[in-house]
Amino acid sequence: MQQTLNIGLIGTGYMGKAHAIALHAAPRVFTLPALPVCDLLAETDAALAASRASELGFARATGDWRELVADPAIDVVDICAPNFLHESMALAAIAAGKHVYSEKPLALTTASAERMTVAAERAGVKTLVGFNYIRNPATQLAREIIASGEIGELVHFRGRHNEDYLADPELPHNWRTRRDTAGSGALGDVGSHILNMAEYLTGQSITTVCGDLQTLIRQRPLPDGSGMGEVENDDQAQAMLHFSQGLMGNIETSRIASGRKMGLAYCVTGTHGALVFDQERMNELQLYRHEGPKGRRGFSTLLIGPEHTDYAAFSPAPGHGLGYNDQKIIEVRDLIEGILGQRELYPDFRQACRINRLIDAIERSHRERCWIGID
Amino acid sequence: MQQTLNIGLIGTGYMGKAHAIALHAAPRVFTLPALPVCDLLAETDAALAASRASELGFARATGDWRELVADPAIDVVDICAPNFLHESMALAAIAAGKHVYSEKPLALTTASAERMTVAAERAGVKTLVGFNYIRNPATQLAREIIASGEIGELVHFRGRHNEDYLADPELPHNWRTRRDTAGSGALGDVGSHILNMAEYLTGQSITTVCGDLQTLIRQRPLPDGSGMGEVENDDQAQAMLHFSQGLMGNIETSRIASGRKMGLAYCVTGTHGALVFDQERMNELQLYRHEGPKGRRGFSTLLIGPEHTDYAAFSPAPGHGLGYNDQKIIEVRDLIEGILGQRELYPDFRQACRINRLIDAIERSHRERCWIGID
Amino acid sequence: MQQTLNIGLIGTGYMGKAHAIALHAAPRVFTLPALPVCDLLAETDAALAASRASELGFARATGDWRELVADPAIDVVDICAPNFLHESMALAAIAAGKHVYSEKPLALTTASAERMTVAAERAGVKTLVGFNYIRNPATQLAREIIASGEIGELVHFRGRHNEDYLADPELPHNWRTRRDTAGSGALGDVGSHILNMAEYLTGQSITTVCGDLQTLIRQRPLPDGSGMGEVENDDQAQAMLHFSQGLMGNIETSRIASGRKMGLAYCVTGTHGALVFDQERMNELQLYRHEGPKGRRGFSTLLIGPEHTDYAAFSPAPGHGLGYNDQKIIEVRDLIEGILGQRELYPDFRQACRINRLIDAIERSHRERCWIGID
Amino acid sequence: MQQTLNIGLIGTGYMGKAHAIALHAAPRVFTLPALPVCDLLAETDAALAASRASELGFARATGDWRELVADPAIDVVDICAPNFLHESMALAAIAAGKHVYSEKPLALTTASAERMTVAAERAGVKTLVGFNYIRNPATQLAREIIASGEIGELVHFRGRHNEDYLADPELPHNWRTRRDTAGSGALGDVGSHILNMAEYLTGQSITTVCGDLQTLIRQRPLPDGSGMGEVENDDQAQAMLHFSQGLMGNIETSRIASGRKMGLAYCVTGTHGALVFDQERMNELQLYRHEGPKGRRGFSTLLIGPEHTDYAAFSPAPGHGLGYNDQKIIEVRDLIEGILGQRELYPDFRQACRINRLIDAIERSHRERCWIGID
Ligand SMILES: NC(=O)C1=CN([C@@H]2O[C@H](COP(=O)(O)OP(=O)(O)OC[C@H]3O[C@@H](n4cnc5c(N)ncnc54)[C@H](O)[C@@H]3O)[C@@H](O)[C@H]2O)C=CC1
Ligand SMILES: NC(=O)C1=CN([C@@H]2O[C@H](COP(=O)(O)OP(=O)(O)OC[C@H]3O[C@@H](n4cnc5c(N)ncnc54)[C@H](O)[C@@H]3O)[C@@H](O)[C@H]2O)C=CC1
Ligand SMILES: NC(=O)C1=CN([C@@H]2O[C@H](COP(=O)(O)OP(=O)(O)OC[C@H]3O[C@@H](n4cnc5c(N)ncnc54)[C@H](O)[C@@H]3O)[C@@H](O)[C@H]2O)C=CC1
Ligand SMILES: NC(=O)C1=CN([C@@H]2O[C@H](COP(=O)(O)OP(=O)(O)OC[C@H]3O[C@@H](n4cnc5c(N)ncnc54)[C@H](O)[C@@H]3O)[C@@H](O)[C@H]2O)C=CC1
Repeated sequence: MQQTLNIGLIGTGYMGKAHAIALHAAPRVFTLPALPVCDLLAETDAALAASRASELGFARATGDWRELVADPAIDVVDICAPNFLHESMALAAIAAGKHVYSEKPLALTTASAERMTVAAERAGVKTLVGFNYIRNPATQLAREIIASGEIGELVHFRGRHNEDYLADPELPHNWRTRRDTAGSGALGDVGSHILNMAEYLTGQSITTVCGDLQTLIRQRPLPDGSGMGEVENDDQAQAMLHFSQGLMGNIETSRIASGRKMGLAYCVTGTHGALVFDQERMNELQLYRHEGPKGRRGFSTLLIGPEHTDYAAFSPAPGHGLGYNDQKIIEVRDLIEGILGQRELYPDFRQACRINRLIDAIERSHRERCWIGID
Repeated sequence: MQQTLNIGLIGTGYMGKAHAIALHAAPRVFTLPALPVCDLLAETDAALAASRASELGFARATGDWRELVADPAIDVVDICAPNFLHESMALAAIAAGKHVYSEKPLALTTASAERMTVAAERAGVKTLVGFNYIRNPATQLAREIIASGEIGELVHFRGRHNEDYLADPELPHNWRTRRDTAGSGALGDVGSHILNMAEYLTGQSITTVCGDLQTLIRQRPLPDGSGMGEVENDDQAQAMLHFSQGLMGNIETSRIASGRKMGLAYCVTGTHGALVFDQERMNELQLYRHEGPKGRRGFSTLLIGPEHTDYAAFSPAPGHGLGYNDQKIIEVRDLIEGILGQRELYPDFRQACRINRLIDAIERSHRERCWIGID
Repeated sequence: MQQTLNIGLIGTGYMGKAHAIALHAAPRVFTLPALPVCDLLAETDAALAASRASELGFARATGDWRELVADPAIDVVDICAPNFLHESMALAAIAAGKHVYSEKPLALTTASAERMTVAAERAGVKTLVGFNYIRNPATQLAREIIASGEIGELVHFRGRHNEDYLADPELPHNWRTRRDTAGSGALGDVGSHILNMAEYLTGQSITTVCGDLQTLIRQRPLPDGSGMGEVENDDQAQAMLHFSQGLMGNIETSRIASGRKMGLAYCVTGTHGALVFDQERMNELQLYRHEGPKGRRGFSTLLIGPEHTDYAAFSPAPGHGLGYNDQKIIEVRDLIEGILGQRELYPDFRQACRINRLIDAIERSHRERCWIGID
Repeated sequence: MQQTLNIGLIGTGYMGKAHAIALHAAPRVFTLPALPVCDLLAETDAALAASRASELGFARATGDWRELVADPAIDVVDICAPNFLHESMALAAIAAGKHVYSEKPLALTTASAERMTVAAERAGVKTLVGFNYIRNPATQLAREIIASGEIGELVHFRGRHNEDYLADPELPHNWRTRRDTAGSGALGDVGSHILNMAEYLTGQSITTVCGDLQTLIRQRPLPDGSGMGEVENDDQAQAMLHFSQGLMGNIETSRIASGRKMGLAYCVTGTHGALVFDQERMNELQLYRHEGPKGRRGFSTLLIGPEHTDYAAFSPAPGHGLGYNDQKIIEVRDLIEGILGQRELYPDFRQACRINRLIDAIERSHRERCWIGID
């Protein structure tokens, strides 16, 4: 009989639902070494938890996440709650000996992320953080092309993750606009993805940053209608970066970039070619190579297909397209295989903690108007 | 307690797996009026059936599809076997009082499709045929825009469904290249999608066709290595079409269109605008409207988001992207709601039978070198 | 001293100005074997002719084109008048021993085009017809790629030339909407370009056609405000085509295709690749080839540059872009070199007469609802 | 009789030819207040000058540019020589009371550019610098849209001008790779365009910069074959920018960006919309606006046409496309009208001097690893 892993899911908003879909679909898409079982779900109160458990296909429900992390039946705690809860939930789960699958960014601060990392490593539990865009087969292909040297030595990295989910100034405060619940703003919320992407793709660490942040919409309506409140973190940010092997680059991130819905994009240039990618066209990678007759060189649009990593499990037919949630299905496969020791978990808490460190450094660089080294 | 519908799946190739994924994921994505239960699976032999049932999450397995259709526990028979088996399987299922969810094209010939339609209607069972591309929210949006008159009266329809899955002449015969197993070639296999799309989008029936077919790769290796065998159906086809309200248009279809992987595409032109769509970029619809100052008119790239039909259930965030399998998830939702009487099933056997009629007419038009009316 | 060719230009509307710009610029772009001299210009009356001559840089002007064709100083008669005047102007020019550079379509009917062709050939004068889109380096590249066999044997041709210049039903009659001044409608006006393109690109002759025409806007305001008048030719047309070496294909053409401004586009598919082109992005050719590892195949966007035919004379820098008028500059170069015997003139009256024959056949096919062979 | 302006052109490389084409074509495209006369041409020696004068349609030639600037017949000195010659040529021309049309960047250093600016202003001659990309109607449209407030208050500017003309390390030194002939590298050569564009588009001045430069290919073959020589300026650069009204942004520039041929591109985001432009598709502007129903918002591809500034003179038909050289034709029109006092000349030496100041500040910021204010 197939091994099982009982999952305890905390939080059923945007991400909680995405995780639930992926947990149910993953075993049908991939042949997994263990079956994830949607066992227990926690929400802010018992009634909500019960109704969400029924919707999302979980066997049991609780209004208290501490009950969930303590439940002996649970093997993996899956944290889909707002950022400020990640640390306490993860520490409790680790203390209870559970593996932890957490959403990004790992924590509000580097210090918090470090506490989580140290605790997990000491406890010997496995961890994975939900930077799902690196699971997209198109991006996996980009990394493989870079790693194989097909575009030569890397020369430049340009990345952005811009969206416009808070472009409307009438949108009220939510947990994302407050420092004590979110940490940094666009930089942590979506910028964390492109920072993680930068290191994932290039295989190099970011060693120095020079950052620049802005809060354009300085006040937003309070959700309770009691007036306006200060926005406490950045609406947009940009940074120049240097990497461990001399590569230079830059990133941009925004939550007020009118018109951008899923604006994670990158251009990686090498001495013998270049890659261009835009997550709004997530099934395409543009590849340019110095090769063949000059009059036949151009950016090729590679449509992802079964010859690329992780696509064939979804469809034998090339170019038929994966969606956002399919990235989470791959992430769940990685989680399961990682817990079973068949694959390295990446990014685990240690790597995700680096992202927190980069965010903090960019913020500090902004305040001090200078370049900041990352240790 | 939630109502359930027991599903019996026949065939676990490309489509069988896609259906299985969708059956498992649909209840997590949508709130369904009944829970589809992956109960029984049939394959060509018992061992294969058993292993696939375990992979695809079905409770029981059988090496004989007749057993499946006869099984009293089964509510819906889901036919994912090659075309030539659709009729016998559907007739048996209908005879046993089951609802039928069948892959496309419905049958090898119009006569066969008519027998299936008549049987289903007499038996009063519900039917749905898997022309999944019409479930894509981008295409649902196209239909809504057309129906609302936003682009005016329709003036022209151009459609194609071109792929290159048989462009390589070394690829051996399979069931798709033989008349007794597939019926027509590219025209039935992928062309059926664009014919169905034409009527779905325009809300008009095709009334006259003028067709043109070609088999370019006339012989292919026999799969048993015993030499070469004649290819018995078309590699590519094109047709001009007239519709019930005077609209004119054309379609193209191919299985040897080098470079096209998922080349279903359409351009619908109206008196006040136009729509352009390409399934290789399945999350985008291009909309042009005669409106506003002349210098600001252009094709807009609408990224599908939660404000469009059926997207929000997958993600609250716009532009994050659906994939091929997500279309099947929507199809399963439609199936369940349709069986429960909450929605009209489209295309049912009657409409799918029209597609067979169109295919036959295009073939006849090709042979007779003339326009053919559709009754 | 450099040889000169005195040009007599008739008509100074859209095309007349484009020719004038090209005649002045061509000797600066290319090293020509003879200098075209903008000598004499004819318009409908002397005053208009004089003012246009000053604007367009012509030395002399006349209100009577018969004077121009008879003028002994003139070497080349350049006809930019409406279609119905092409024959009389060309015949007079030929009778006077002039070379003729005429705008397309050559004539209102095949019979007229034949008279012109026979006259020119008997007189031994050189002729060139202004199907300028085939001069675009991107399209010249497409032809070279096809001719060299890089995409294998041709399998399918799809072409269209759709614009929306008459989509607005309030636009009054002009010479383009009347049979006695234009001949056919969209089919002759823009469709002629794509028919010429089809033969130019493939190197094959169209041998059989099956056509379909429509006039959607059946009445338009008379230009004198006296009410409405019948539109006498097609607003849109489509046709299926067979070519001399077995190739099949289709074309579409329209003057009411909302949103399309310069919608000449083609897709040529071969056994080993494909080409996709859209004149709205006239400096790009998309090339797909079955070559190299499967996971690296995709349509490449070739930006035209100095390594491609006829670009380097405009710029040493790749991808910097040519415009519409630059095509006319290349056409003028071809004209001059052709007259000087250094290049074959293509399409000359004989080839342009074929286009008239194709137009007539498509119209007849439409009336008779059958396929028509071209002799 | 029409007024004339005698032009003296110095240098007939890439730019010299482009200017010559434009000088000949401009009076045919536009109705100019004065006719530019291609009178005198200077090159490095008399023979070369004579042959180029014949090719480029100039009446007279000289092997000594000092003769040209001193020639009393000359009204305008047009400098298309390498950067290091701009100052001496311009100062001599100004001293002789000529108007000066100079290629960019204005000078090797800010100090040099200031001397030129002061001299020109004192002498009261008119000046124009060839930052031609701002003449592109698509970019003029972008500026108009921004100025009109259609996209709201500006929030972010992203620009790049990346090409790969020196990506190949085998390419030898030329005047562009040496400090004494070029000044800065990619930053001055192409980066100057995007810096000028940033201020042109936004209508704001850049007030603070933080720069970062790299020379990747540190040695190149000496052109005389005598070995390798040090590359003396940057291969690529990036900078973060702040503007006078609080806008933030960044730019990138490169001469080794594999695959980019004409990679000037920008994205300007405002509170109510955004603009995206790529000079490789120079006839398209992408416009997004927060307007109308949410489900109909998206980036519109505006194809430039006669309703946009400066297009109609080239063609009455929308979307037919301008090319690189057409930008120079518009620039020549601006020059003539500016000299005749009918239009402000922009960028004149004063504004072009700003660009030199920005380049210097970015270089200094790079050396000092800090933000630098621009006075
Ligand atoms: N990987 C990705 O692409 C994305 C990641 N995220 C991350 O996922 C996490 C959650 O974000 P969203 O789902 O967007 O937020 P959300 O606001 O939509 O959902 C948060 C959920 O957590 C629940 N929750 C709050 N406090 C709780 C408590 N004490 N106990 C149990 N449940 C509690 C809320 O009731 C709500 O259902 C965040 O860390 C966010 O950064 C979010 C969106 C995308
Ligand atoms: N909606 C769509 O976009 C698509 C629809 N299809 C349709 O789906 C159907 C199946 O096609 P594929 O999955 O591509 O074929 P396939 O060849 O990949 O799979 C067919 C499956 O049916 C099984 N089968 C054959 N005979 C059987 C029998 N007597 N009893 C039980 N199982 C049997 C085979 O063992 C195999 O697993 C066809 O009608 C095809 O036209 C296929 C691909 C895409
Ligand atoms: N190659 C191409 O892409 C294009 C070709 N054309 C062709 O060019 C020709 C002219 O078309 P347009 O310039 O668009 O027309 P237009 O209507 O803009 O200009 C026609 C010109 O001919 C003049 N004209 C009319 N009768 C005349 C006469 N008896 N004597 C002297 N001049 C006379 C008119 O006054 C007017 O200036 C047509 O054959 C058309 O099909 C037009 C547009 C594009
Ligand atoms: N606006 C734009 O987009 C572009 C501007 N440029 C600018 O144009 C200028 C020239 O660049 P290119 O044409 O690319 O250089 P190039 O090297 O192609 O041509 C320079 C020309 O100047 C001539 N020359 C050199 N010394 C001379 C002298 N003492 N007297 C007379 N002629 C002399 C050379 O013989 C050569 O013909 C530079 O300032 C460059 O930055 C260049 C390319 C594009």
